Amino acid sequence: MKQLLLITGMPGSGKTTVAKIIGEQGFPVVSMGDAVREEADARGIGGNILEMSRFMVELRKELGEEAVARLVDKKIEKVDSNFIVVDGARSLREVEYFRSKKDYKVTIVGVLSPLRLRYSRLSGRNRPDDPKMLKELEERDRVELSVGLGEVLALSDIYIINEEDLKELRENVKKKILAPLTSRFRRT
Amino acid sequence: MKQLLLITGMPGSGKTTVAKIIGEQGFPVVSMGDAVREEADARGIGGNILEMSRFMVELRKELGEEAVARLVDKKIEKVDSNFIVVDGARSLREVEYFRSKKDYKVTIVGVLSPLRLRYSRLSGRNRPDDPKMLKELEERDRVELSVGLGEVLALSDIYIINEEDLKELRENVKKKILAPLTSRFRRT
Repeated sequence: MKQLLLITGMPGSGKTTVAKIIGEQGFPVVSMGDAVREEADARGIGGNILEMSRFMVELRKELGEEAVARLVDKKIEKVDSNFIVVDGARSLREVEYFRSKKDYKVTIVGVLSPLRLRYSRLSGRNRPDDPKMLKELEERDRVELSVGLGEVLALSDIYIINEEDLKELRENVKKKILAPLTSRFRRT
Repeated sequence: MKQLLLITGMPGSGKTTVAKIIGEQGFPVVSMGDAVREEADARGIGGNILEMSRFMVELRKELGEEAVARLVDKKIEKVDSNFIVVDGARSLREVEYFRSKKDYKVTIVGVLSPLRLRYSRLSGRNRPDDPKMLKELEERDRVELSVGLGEVLALSDIYIINEEDLKELRENVKKKILAPLTSRFRRT
């Protein structure tokens, strides 16, 4: 039995930081974003974050809604650990794909930050109100929501709000995820 | 200028409790669910919560995605206050409807509770694992998500996690909503 912790969150919410904090404790992390980038590389497609987001949507159209989950699962199967963090779940179909596997136990972690704070972070606190920048951030949100990220967030098992500093985020992750875990799972 | 605080959250998340806590401080609350029920009454339609949820979907098909926002807005226009709590926003089209009105300033509050806790509450802590009950709870979630509730949650301006007791919820609402408010808005 493998316990999968699927981390979901909007761009700039800090989901990858949450995955890293758990990873620092010795738990393996696989990234759904990395799987998309590797697939893009294999096809000779390059691009910025927004273009990668769009490629992710294309990939789903081409290979099915659970396409990225399948790519990531090939990595998960090779990981020798009974607890694995999966960074970047984006649709209920992905969640269902993992839940359909009998030897996986799936927990969804929703990472949340207020919209203004996400936009400040994504723009490097550099003019998030600039109309061009704002338009790009809104488009990025729209692409993520079009895949179904909002539904995964809405049905999460654990919520982490990330709206203060890294210290508070670490404390939240420790209290809500690591403390219940470390007693139950061996580290790699 | 009217400041609208749109409260969103999945069934059992505690969004109405959050609205009530703010209402106790003298701020007017209008309920989108009440508006749907009143419209159902006017049409001679009765029903349980799940049936009301489905009627809400029908109403949107019939009158447009922002149907419930329009019904609620008739109430808002009559309220003599520059700060109004709107309980139960469910789609970005509703949010856009309110944002399109020049004299409204809109803030979205997303209320979140872990899925198991929501199901425990909704089943009255009475066998949420009973397959029939579980099926009904999942169907209720699906209806809400079909309207777009997940997207509103994902784009919220303020997040409140409701996973402890009422005391903690009150403290959260006080800290994140009431404290910044009471200095800026008069009470009715």
